Amino acid sequence: VKPMSQNWPQWTQVSALLGDLVQTLSERGRAVLSRSREVGDEPHLSLVRMAEALLSRRGEASGVALAELLLDELTRATRDEKLEFLLALARDFGPDLEHVDAALEAYRAEPGLVTLNALHEASEPRRQELFRRLNLARGGTKALVTLREEISRHSKAEPDLACVNDDFGHLFGSWFNRGFLQMRRIDWTTPANVLEKIIQYEAVHAISDWDDLRNRLEPPDRRCYAFFHPQLADVPLIFVEVALTKGIPDNVDELLTLDREPLRADEADTAVFYSISNTQKGLAGVSFGNFLIKQVVEDLKKERGNLKTFVTLSPVPGFASWLAKERTSESSSILSEEDKATLTLLDEPGWETHEDKVSTLHQVLLHAAAGYFLVARRPDGRPLDPVGRFHLGNGARLERLNMLGDRSPKGLKQSHGLMVNYLYALDHIEKNHEAYAERGEVIASGAVQEHLLASDRPQAAALRLSRA
Amino acid sequence: VKPMSQNWPQWTQVSALLGDLVQTLSERGRAVLSRSREVGDEPHLSLVRMAEALLSRRGEASGVALAELLLDELTRATRDEKLEFLLALARDFGPDLEHVDAALEAYRAEPGLVTLNALHEASEPRRQELFRRLNLARGGTKALVTLREEISRHSKAEPDLACVNDDFGHLFGSWFNRGFLQMRRIDWTTPANVLEKIIQYEAVHAISDWDDLRNRLEPPDRRCYAFFHPQLADVPLIFVEVALTKGIPDNVDELLTLDREPLRADEADTAVFYSISNTQKGLAGVSFGNFLIKQVVEDLKKERGNLKTFVTLSPVPGFASWLAKERTSESSSILSEEDKATLTLLDEPGWETHEDKVSTLHQVLLHAAAGYFLVARRPDGRPLDPVGRFHLGNGARLERLNMLGDRSPKGLKQSHGLMVNYLYALDHIEKNHEAYAERGEVIASGAVQEHLLASDRPQAAALRLSRA
Amino acid sequence: VKPMSQNWPQWTQVSALLGDLVQTLSERGRAVLSRSREVGDEPHLSLVRMAEALLSRRGEASGVALAELLLDELTRATRDEKLEFLLALARDFGPDLEHVDAALEAYRAEPGLVTLNALHEASEPRRQELFRRLNLARGGTKALVTLREEISRHSKAEPDLACVNDDFGHLFGSWFNRGFLQMRRIDWTTPANVLEKIIQYEAVHAISDWDDLRNRLEPPDRRCYAFFHPQLADVPLIFVEVALTKGIPDNVDELLTLDREPLRADEADTAVFYSISNTQKGLAGVSFGNFLIKQVVEDLKKERGNLKTFVTLSPVPGFASWLAKERTSESSSILSEEDKATLTLLDEPGWETHEDKVSTLHQVLLHAAAGYFLVARRPDGRPLDPVGRFHLGNGARLERLNMLGDRSPKGLKQSHGLMVNYLYALDHIEKNHEAYAERGEVIASGAVQEHLLASDRPQAAALRLSRA
Amino acid sequence: VKPMSQNWPQWTQVSALLGDLVQTLSERGRAVLSRSREVGDEPHLSLVRMAEALLSRRGEASGVALAELLLDELTRATRDEKLEFLLALARDFGPDLEHVDAALEAYRAEPGLVTLNALHEASEPRRQELFRRLNLARGGTKALVTLREEISRHSKAEPDLACVNDDFGHLFGSWFNRGFLQMRRIDWTTPANVLEKIIQYEAVHAISDWDDLRNRLEPPDRRCYAFFHPQLADVPLIFVEVALTKGIPDNVDELLTLDREPLRADEADTAVFYSISNTQKGLAGVSFGNFLIKQVVEDLKKERGNLKTFVTLSPVPGFASWLAKERTSESSSILSEEDKATLTLLDEPGWETHEDKVSTLHQVLLHAAAGYFLVARRPDGRPLDPVGRFHLGNGARLERLNMLGDRSPKGLKQSHGLMVNYLYALDHIEKNHEAYAERGEVIASGAVQEHLLASDRPQAAALRLSRA
Repeated sequence: VKPMSQNWPQWTQVSALLGDLVQTLSERGRAVLSRSREVGDEPHLSLVRMAEALLSRRGEASGVALAELLLDELTRATRDEKLEFLLALARDFGPDLEHVDAALEAYRAEPGLVTLNALHEASEPRRQELFRRLNLARGGTKALVTLREEISRHSKAEPDLACVNDDFGHLFGSWFNRGFLQMRRIDWTTPANVLEKIIQYEAVHAISDWDDLRNRLEPPDRRCYAFFHPQLADVPLIFVEVALTKGIPDNVDELLTLDREPLRADEADTAVFYSISNTQKGLAGVSFGNFLIKQVVEDLKKERGNLKTFVTLSPVPGFASWLAKERTSESSSILSEEDKATLTLLDEPGWETHEDKVSTLHQVLLHAAAGYFLVARRPDGRPLDPVGRFHLGNGARLERLNMLGDRSPKGLKQSHGLMVNYLYALDHIEKNHEAYAERGEVIASGAVQEHLLASDRPQAAALRLSRA
Repeated sequence: VKPMSQNWPQWTQVSALLGDLVQTLSERGRAVLSRSREVGDEPHLSLVRMAEALLSRRGEASGVALAELLLDELTRATRDEKLEFLLALARDFGPDLEHVDAALEAYRAEPGLVTLNALHEASEPRRQELFRRLNLARGGTKALVTLREEISRHSKAEPDLACVNDDFGHLFGSWFNRGFLQMRRIDWTTPANVLEKIIQYEAVHAISDWDDLRNRLEPPDRRCYAFFHPQLADVPLIFVEVALTKGIPDNVDELLTLDREPLRADEADTAVFYSISNTQKGLAGVSFGNFLIKQVVEDLKKERGNLKTFVTLSPVPGFASWLAKERTSESSSILSEEDKATLTLLDEPGWETHEDKVSTLHQVLLHAAAGYFLVARRPDGRPLDPVGRFHLGNGARLERLNMLGDRSPKGLKQSHGLMVNYLYALDHIEKNHEAYAERGEVIASGAVQEHLLASDRPQAAALRLSRA
Repeated sequence: VKPMSQNWPQWTQVSALLGDLVQTLSERGRAVLSRSREVGDEPHLSLVRMAEALLSRRGEASGVALAELLLDELTRATRDEKLEFLLALARDFGPDLEHVDAALEAYRAEPGLVTLNALHEASEPRRQELFRRLNLARGGTKALVTLREEISRHSKAEPDLACVNDDFGHLFGSWFNRGFLQMRRIDWTTPANVLEKIIQYEAVHAISDWDDLRNRLEPPDRRCYAFFHPQLADVPLIFVEVALTKGIPDNVDELLTLDREPLRADEADTAVFYSISNTQKGLAGVSFGNFLIKQVVEDLKKERGNLKTFVTLSPVPGFASWLAKERTSESSSILSEEDKATLTLLDEPGWETHEDKVSTLHQVLLHAAAGYFLVARRPDGRPLDPVGRFHLGNGARLERLNMLGDRSPKGLKQSHGLMVNYLYALDHIEKNHEAYAERGEVIASGAVQEHLLASDRPQAAALRLSRA
Repeated sequence: VKPMSQNWPQWTQVSALLGDLVQTLSERGRAVLSRSREVGDEPHLSLVRMAEALLSRRGEASGVALAELLLDELTRATRDEKLEFLLALARDFGPDLEHVDAALEAYRAEPGLVTLNALHEASEPRRQELFRRLNLARGGTKALVTLREEISRHSKAEPDLACVNDDFGHLFGSWFNRGFLQMRRIDWTTPANVLEKIIQYEAVHAISDWDDLRNRLEPPDRRCYAFFHPQLADVPLIFVEVALTKGIPDNVDELLTLDREPLRADEADTAVFYSISNTQKGLAGVSFGNFLIKQVVEDLKKERGNLKTFVTLSPVPGFASWLAKERTSESSSILSEEDKATLTLLDEPGWETHEDKVSTLHQVLLHAAAGYFLVARRPDGRPLDPVGRFHLGNGARLERLNMLGDRSPKGLKQSHGLMVNYLYALDHIEKNHEAYAERGEVIASGAVQEHLLASDRPQAAALRLSRA
């Protein structure tokens, strides 16, 4: 893969293409609209009636126009009207029950692949076809992603919307298949309307302003990559920020500081993924991160043969709250009473600035962290840490625990400053993933395991450890 | 829509993008391949086992690599091996029957949307997910389209493949949704590798060489448009050739002759669709033509306000064989014995060059043609002519019958030279389509209806005519 | 001209092309370099000797390599070394005097077009050919523009450099001919590395940050256009900022305020050029502004037929200092003693915030301003105001004087807040230009002339006024 | 340099850009035109008067419009009117003689750089500024190149046009400086309107049709490169066709045959330049070939490390006519009487098909050829062969003489089938060029020299040979 920054301009083309691809609003649509409205006995055709029309014969003849019309109306609808429409999708656009009954009857009468297939088709909710027809419109894909985002506002209050949400998820999983995505490098020659989305959606280490942004994009030892879909061409669906370094960094400050001296790209031996962010709530559940990281690893390997190590520098968002509980637990399998006593230092504000307190805490805190990752589990057997579940599920290895890797208020609050590195070693990813996915094993380096065993305790021997 | 030719270069970009989008073959894939083969107890992993691997845990971790591997093998497979693989897809990659039984049981126990949805999911053939995972690979979409094309070679001998074919059709209907297609103008600045596909796939009036091609693309009164998909960027999926004319032409020779004087684009009042061709057998059943014609009509209207009439100049492929039967039928409701006698002139070779014979045949032949379109029907109530079914189904109107519109050997053979015009009047398309789709009515102009009634016959009055 | 924003992506292409056009540094160059250095009896080949080599036989064979080498060295040279090189260009790379003498002799012997042409060629400074050969190198054009910029640092101390400067000017006038420039719209989809140059080079109303920048680019009633040269593809050579308004604005605050409500583009009837900035000192004397403004006028006219008026809202940088002198002049032909008395209000800090003071000053200040533009002159007969000379020289008309059009400290300081509008009426530009260029007439609207005459004074009648 | 074919789409962009760069014809121009014509006392403003207007004050104000107008008129002018205009350019648009006289006077009075520079400026023909102003128009550059092409039709009949031709040459040498050119790969994804120019302008081995063209572009062992100028974006100014081979080929048939098996690109060790063609007569004298070949050598070296040898396979257009004279010369220093006797075989039609005749001729013909290259000279000391002068002047070495390298009728006629290889060894190019340019030496391989010396003759020793 050639240097991707050079391809950026090619990509921005796609953005222009879209304007074309989705075409200008058809005059037909306007005509249909005015006619529909004249015949309507109400102030305006309801969204639901337009949806039915789109699924009808008229939809076959004038699908593009009707779809544009409906999406147009939807854009202008109030929040309440949108909710009403979504509820109607849940209620009235499920499978056609008569068809289902007939198909069931036929399958019972003569079970087989043909009747089963007919049953499968009959049980497809009508809204699936509705969504496909809405996608005929210019900007249809974007509108549908936005519509699903609307569901998330009501998911608790309106459990019936779950089925609509699932149908969207199924559809988007197919439409946003990795095969349809393009990976693009984001750099300082990227159009501003794309860059502002990077600022807006950065979820891990907030970008304060355009200077901060440039500092993450322009230096020769910084990279940023994103996935794009041809139909949402100026929207990075997910992006990852990368630092090229010498050795594996143990804290994020040295990566983000504005006044550092950049490394020449050929001096680096390590690529560090220090931030990965999804941008579209409407695409929740469609997994991009796994593919993005692995693609970047492959491409960087080809572009710079000197890069040997691919790791993350990751936050540990669940550590502090877990530790708080563990410290009060009387039956902790991880913390001894002595450990708990030592950990009270954490309750002293500003402990992180006292060298001696830090020194005292060092061994115990990392021991606790090792326990958090290697021993503690959710009821379903998965690790507690959400970031951990993502990277371990990708087949990465927990490589190192970094005391005070993030001294920001957020970092201290969520994990007492702890950060960790996950290692992406392509040759082991498959095996790691299988061990994790099938047996719930957390693959960790010897160093991490040592932290757990370090304090010589009897129970340590009994821990179910995976030794990679 | 701005002049699309100027956008062509933008489009060719997409082609370049694809090289990027689908990335270079991963070294991982190669590694996986060699490893897989080492452990294999046979000369090579069978395609089926690779497909199972892709659907397994390993597929989650190494989907891209495994998908590329499988498609790579598939490319190298012999025709027999491919058939075997397709049959295995039919046999072994249907729905998981245990899941289906359980879902059926649950639905019986508690019928409702949730259990019905579970039943829908359980009855999805496993190959659907397999296809989605194969699409992770570079060039996956193209490979899948090619694979489906393979089915068409065996469809008669192997009826079991029908279900695989249907699953492909369902998937492609979603992936090649019109919302994902781009319409592009094809002209003389189009890359040669795209243009040669126009020559190759022209299905109506063959293009003899590059001069003939240029003659259809370069003059100011000629247009050609095609739909493209981002993932098959140098392949026009369907294309339509258009002539801008003064008035509605009644024969194709004047359109295609090389030595005509081109019209200035602003002198034209009519756009004539004289050829429309699909290119991908693997996309059979995914309908593009309807959308393409209507999009071209909308765009041309915007680009050139002087264009008022949008018609086709179409062949009538089923006319001659129908007429042969009708002439021998003793109970023809359309041909009188006198008509039959007149029509024997058609059996005299070279009749089309004798002015008097042509003159004698004129009224009778057009009367027969009107009957062919307006009266004759297939058992399902649809018109006999396949081209007619396409345009009438789109909501076009049968506008005019043209005696000797095509004097080529092919034209004389299939329709005694008859050509017809279908009119695309956007304001009536919806109504026409409904009349056709719901009541089987053939919408025809008064002039065409006159041909039917012209010979004063009692039965004429009884004909079920649709008067637009 | 179609909406230019859509073309931006096309333009960014050019940037990528350049990487190609100027190619990667030749290995040959490196080889030549090392060889040249080996044979050198000094630490390094002097720039001058390399320049001589480039003009020699070796330059014919290895021009590209030698040119890259020289420019490479020049980049690394200290400021003193650069100056030395420039002085050598002045001293040693003028015309070949022997050739000149011979050509003079020949012309005297036989005066005629042939000998005169030979004389013209012989008198060309050798550095002209040197510059052309340096342009063979990748990035040569940019390097030469930068080199000329260096001259401006020394122009006073080293008058000998004037001839080098002139030769550059002559060359750049040809290379940066308007026919080789592309006008591009700058908007919010423009690459960030171009946008930051807009922030950097805005010379009239400073852009405080990226939000301010967006405020000038993104709203539907704002435009920005720039000229680019294919060889400096990411550098806007000159750019103009435009506001679309209803009516002619009389102050700049309402244009620049961040919290205004944007106008819909189709509601505007006026396009206001409120800032125009050159970016390259090295291109001083190559005039772009005239062409840029007229091109924007033509394009906006085509794009938006509702735009009828094209004006500037311009500063008056020389007014305050002129007025200061005029107020102390005993023989002012413009200010009466009464006027001078009134104008002492200007010496009271904050006068602009007192409605009554402003009201008192109004007539007198605008009278003075009219005199500044219409009566006062430089020794060469041109108006005193530099901005005025630019627009009047372009054929624009002085349309309106705006009291307190710019209340910023800078505005108050340079012109007591005065701003003016120059009107670009394409139909009168030629005539206006001729009147200005040949007879020194300042074309002004009746309203402006009224300000001059308003105070009924005898001398007014005698003023040399141009009545457009 | 990355594979250039991928960049092609980027390039075609430039073509689209041009449409923009040169903008749509200004309405102003039309207005000016109609006004100019109204005031004209003749049917239309003469081209000359428009040229004067463009150089006047009006040209300053309305340069773009006037330039477009003039070029518009010029397009419509008859051949005679064009000639008249060119003659007027020669006659009336030379230097301003009054200015020249004054400048001469000043220089005599005070000789120095300043007065000399003034003299240089005064002696510039006025048409140079006229050409620069004409370039303001859309498509100006192309129109000027076309205008110069017109001169070549009259160069013999109208010697006065020589000075106009020279001025164009001077200007184009600056505007088409290699630094402004882009090298692009031409392949099968190139737009058809560019490809047809390759067919049209191929000057060495004619391309018979599009299949022949594809055969030279599409196989993996074939390349074609061209230089383009941003202002003539769809016109390849010069192009070179390259074959990648194993070893140096000795005949052109094996390169051009349609039924050969292509080599995989990584199997080749040699790049053969077998055809190089200029396309624009209007750019005669502006040398591109030298730069193009060297750039291709550099790029191919980088792209394919396995390529070690870069040679041409070249015709010898002057050989047969020289040999005919030499055979009748009584004082030939190259041919002995025995040689002459042997060479009578050449007079027997079809000799090239008789193995024994070919065998007999072999040594003598190659001896003669060596003499043609190494000994024979034009009065100015340069070699006789025009192709040889080009490559030797570029610093290439005459590497090998190939008996019957081109058996086509043209090949047999011009050189008895002889072809030669010139070797481009970058490390020796500079030295070779110097030897050739300064001392007239023809650098040839030992093998070629052997051919000269082979027939043991006394005079051989005295030959002025250059031994590389």
